[in-house]
Parts: sequence; C-alpha cells; structure tokens
Amino acid sequence: MTNEGAAATTIAEIAKEAGVSIPTVSKVLNGRPDVAASTRAHVEAIIDKHGYRRRKSRAQRNGTGLVELVFHELDSAWAGQIIKGVELVAGAERIGVVLSELGGEHRPRQEWLDDVLARRPLGVIFVLSDVDDTQRRQLASRNIPFVVVDTAGDLPEGVPAVGSQNWSGGLAATRHLLGLGHRRIAVISGPADVLCSRARVDGYRTALDEAGVPVEPELIRYGDFFVGGGYTHGSELLDQPERPTAIFAGSDNQALGVLRAARERGLRVPEDLSVVGYDDLPVSDWLTPPLTTVHQPLTEMASTATQILLRLVRGEKVRNSRIDLATELVVRDSTAPPPAQD
Amino acid sequence: MTNEGAAATTIAEIAKEAGVSIPTVSKVLNGRPDVAASTRAHVEAIIDKHGYRRRKSRAQRNGTGLVELVFHELDSAWAGQIIKGVELVAGAERIGVVLSELGGEHRPRQEWLDDVLARRPLGVIFVLSDVDDTQRRQLASRNIPFVVVDTAGDLPEGVPAVGSQNWSGGLAATRHLLGLGHRRIAVISGPADVLCSRARVDGYRTALDEAGVPVEPELIRYGDFFVGGGYTHGSELLDQPERPTAIFAGSDNQALGVLRAARERGLRVPEDLSVVGYDDLPVSDWLTPPLTTVHQPLTEMASTATQILLRLVRGEKVRNSRIDLATELVVRDSTAPPPAQD
Repeated sequence: MTNEGAAATTIAEIAKEAGVSIPTVSKVLNGRPDVAASTRAHVEAIIDKHGYRRRKSRAQRNGTGLVELVFHELDSAWAGQIIKGVELVAGAERIGVVLSELGGEHRPRQEWLDDVLARRPLGVIFVLSDVDDTQRRQLASRNIPFVVVDTAGDLPEGVPAVGSQNWSGGLAATRHLLGLGHRRIAVISGPADVLCSRARVDGYRTALDEAGVPVEPELIRYGDFFVGGGYTHGSELLDQPERPTAIFAGSDNQALGVLRAARERGLRVPEDLSVVGYDDLPVSDWLTPPLTTVHQPLTEMASTATQILLRLVRGEKVRNSRIDLATELVVRDSTAPPPAQD
Repeated sequence: MTNEGAAATTIAEIAKEAGVSIPTVSKVLNGRPDVAASTRAHVEAIIDKHGYRRRKSRAQRNGTGLVELVFHELDSAWAGQIIKGVELVAGAERIGVVLSELGGEHRPRQEWLDDVLARRPLGVIFVLSDVDDTQRRQLASRNIPFVVVDTAGDLPEGVPAVGSQNWSGGLAATRHLLGLGHRRIAVISGPADVLCSRARVDGYRTALDEAGVPVEPELIRYGDFFVGGGYTHGSELLDQPERPTAIFAGSDNQALGVLRAARERGLRVPEDLSVVGYDDLPVSDWLTPPLTTVHQPLTEMASTATQILLRLVRGEKVRNSRIDLATELVVRDSTAPPPAQD
C-alpha cells in the first residue's frame, strides 16, 4: 500500500489530534461506512482545518483509472450526447467512466460520495448537478478534482464548469420568430430554479425589447425540460383566448409535447403555430415537421469538460475553467410566418 | 495485497512452469501492457491449461466495487433504457457502473479487455456485443463472470444472456397489419448478421404464411436499426411500382426514417401507409402520428441481466441463465386499414 504509506506522517498527525487510530482516519478518507458519524465529522473537521491533501494514488499519478460521470437524471437522448463526449476523451486515454444517476436530485447524498471516495477516481464530472461546500472540501482533501457540465445554479467562484450560451440561444430563437413576423410569442423554459432556464428567458425578453414588443407575463412558463412539461404548458397556452402564434419550447422534448398539444387542437405546425426547440437532439431533424431548434453542443461540452478535468488531474494550471460554448439556431420546417390576422 | 498473496502458490506454479517471475504472471493477470506479447501468450496458455481461477479480490468477495457495461455503440435513446435498468439494480447495491463503447464493433479489442482486467470488476454486461473464446477464457481465469443483453450472434452454450422474444415480436407486428387487411407488407429489419434481426423477419414470414399471403423477397430488407437505414430502405420500398401499404420498420429509429420517406412522397400515415416500429422508445408515443410499435422491455432486460450477473458474482447457481422476456405490441395511430384499391 505504497501510496497510503507515503502520506502516513500526516495521517498520523490527524489521528493524534483527533484522538483516533490511523486506520480510522484512513477509513474516513476512503468513505467507509464503519466509522461512527460523530467520529467521522470530528476527523473531517481536523482534515479540513489542516488543509490536508491526500497523496495521489498510483492510478491518479499515472493518469489511468476512473472518472466519475454523474447525472441528476438519466434522461435518455440528452444524456446520451453527454456520455458520448466524455467517452470520446476518456476512451482515448483508456480511462474508465463510472456512470451514476442521482435519482432526480441536483445534490448527491453522502452515501454516493462515500462510494466515490472509496473508488478513488481521477476526478468527477457533474452534469446539471453539484456538491455542497462540505462535499467539495471532502473531494479536495482526497485530491479528487471535479468539473460541472452546464449550470444547475450559482456555482461558487473557482469551480470549473463548461456550459453553453443559454442567453444567446434564447435571444436567437426569439429573434428568428420576430423576424418571421410573430408578435405573440410564448416561451416554455426549464425549471425556474435552474439558472440556464432563466438565462434563456432573459434572452427571449431582450429580443422582444429590441423589437419593441411588450413582454406578457402570461406567455412565460417554466416547465421541466421533459415532454410532459411541454404538453401541459403548451395545452394551457393554446387554450388562452388570445393564443400565441409561436412557442419557444425550451427543449426538444418540450417541443414534442407542444407538437402534440397543437395536433390535439387541430393546429397545423408551422401554418397555425410555429415551434422552436432547444438542444438539437439527433431526433429533432426526423420529427414531423423537422424541428427548428437551438443547437446546444452537448457532446463538445462534455468533451471539453473531460479535457479540463484531465488537465486538473495532471496538476496543470487551467486558465479558462469557466467556458460557455456557442449555441446556434438551426432553422428547419417547424417555423413560418404567423397566420394572417382575422 | 492479501488477495494476491492467498493465491500465491498457484501463481508460483504457473510462473515456474512458464519460466517467468511471479510478478510477470501477476502482470499478465492484470492485463498490464509491460509484458512481451509472446511471454504473455505463453503465460495465458499455461493459465488456461491448468484451469487456473484467480482468487476473488476483496471487492469481489464483498460484492462491492464495479460492474462493466459495454455497448457496441452508444446509440442515444436505446442505450439510455439499458443504462437505466443496470443503474437500477447496481445503484441499489452501491455498485459502480463503468460504461464503455466499442466504437461500433461487436467484439472488444484486447486493449479494452486489458483495461477491464486491470480494474478487476465484479463482472461484465455486454450489450449487443460479445467476447471471443480466448477473451472468454481470460475473463473466466480472472473470476470475472459476464452476461449478454440481447444476442448479436450465436452465443456458445452456457453463456448467460437476457434477450427478448424477437420472433414473437415480428409475428405480432405482422399479424396486426394482416388483421387490418394489409396484404403487401414490407419489413426492414436490422443487420442480417445480427440474429435478432433474422428472428423478427422469421416471425414476419410465419405470420404471412399463416394468412396464406406469399412472401415477396423484394419486400424484405435488412437495415442498420438507425434512422438512416429506415429512410434509405423506406424510400426504395415506396418507389417500387407496386409499393407496400404497410412497413414493419424493425426499430423506432428506422420507423422515423420511413415516416420521412413517406412524407417526402406525399404519403399520409396511416391513411396511405401503415408503419410499425420496434422498441417502444419513450419518444415513440410523442411522434406524429404516435407510433404503433413492439414494446421491447429494454430496462427490464438490463435489470434482469444485472441481477443474474450479481448472482454469478456471489457464486450462486443460476438455473435459467438464458432468458427471453416478452415483447408486446402497442397499438397507436400509425396503423390503419390499407387504402381502397384502385
């Protein structure tokens, strides 16, 4: 156990100060469950106080081993794009990718983190998820760097993250609809507590402002990024007395929900209603009609995040560790000028 | 290194017979690259000759650690269903899932297997992929069991596998179309060298035979399970002078391709052409029109495979290690009686 041995003096100091044995400190470092919670908290506090950094394992030093890829939820196609991007970079360096799902939570439970500590990965990639301060310090003391893909909320300064230009995406989608002549444009974004949802809505607002079109609060909705959210909000929007002529649906999945809501009401897309998605999933080109959408470079975002992570693993200085990649409007057949006024 | 030590006598014997050092045998067992290929082959042959079985690692004995999940290709939504099923079972037991993709190959390269041997996982789940005899023996000697999800070809006896009732699926889809009154029914299956593709076509043939409808070779196509294959073959089928009134598209993705081919020719689905998919991916219910398809229980297949794997890991006897789960026809709006004859 060479790597443990090399750091033994420091572990010994921590053990001494905590009044516990060296194996107990080692267990805490490895996230092992067989340590009393109070002992554990006490040891963690001392680890923290001393700014202790565990020596890298052999795998960590060699840059081989595992990276952890963590989704808050494994939503099929969207997740697939991200996985591909991570595999592309990790696979080329023969690094294994351990996949987990947080069951819809944006923060992992301690149990999950314990398993990660036990596996001693090279690093962690969080997707639409993040760790709290305590967990962040736990990763740091074990010398396990992490990177976040997209932003689920306000990330503290210094946390490396790769996102995409959400605000610009919302702006481009709305400008496109305005350019076609639409004035009554609704938006269904993602959950209101996810920053990228807000950024897209802000882009939408700015486009309307630019064009001198008033922002109507009843046309702004926050969904869930899934088909169901698009369907529910799309139905409500289309049942309004003065219904929108265009809906910016916030995700391709939500656009699918809006397409169904329109179909059920006998509305043709794009003749009666224009619909813009977001993400540009592979399926969006094959829908009826093929979907106008905002391309989010999910695979590139994931590759970039993995590259940054591996540079952090190698101890390299990473200058730009907060990057937003460009989004791009892809115009297909689901958008057209609004129907002639009555 | 307790686990290595415990098996040392046997490793020593192998080393002696091979005329190499004990660390060299250990390196071969761990898939390390720093052993000459000829030495390695020699040591493997002796390992094989003696039917050597490595002692389980601590993680393997505890049933903690990692399982490997291997796709021949990470095709978004389809793969997502499988990943969910594996995560469901592995996550509950706090076992990490390492994901890899073979870049479209159905057999892993030795490099990949070496990395797996180095990680010493509890076991391996192959999806539409498999190992050759040598690789199979390598896994066996390292005490790493494996299970196959679906079948990419003829699996040797004794290889545990979870599939679905492909033949019944093909039968049910075709019977449904016959029941609606169709007589000119085409099928686009997956690649001809993948057994499940053949089984579905055989189910199609049997349904036609039952109904006394002659099987027309020009109506049987082998695609690639992807949208492109459906589009190409769908286009060719619809350009035939006597075009089919129904297409069993072999996968939901291929159905998407057929839907586009139909749309481009001004054919309405289901009025002019009925289309049946296969898989029942989440998106199929949200297409225009919602797709009639054969539900393939991908998530359950993956969960079942993982459960079987974990029983093998625990050394339990698994009686039924070759299981096909039921497929089920889901009738939605993409199928209807054929248009009236001219």
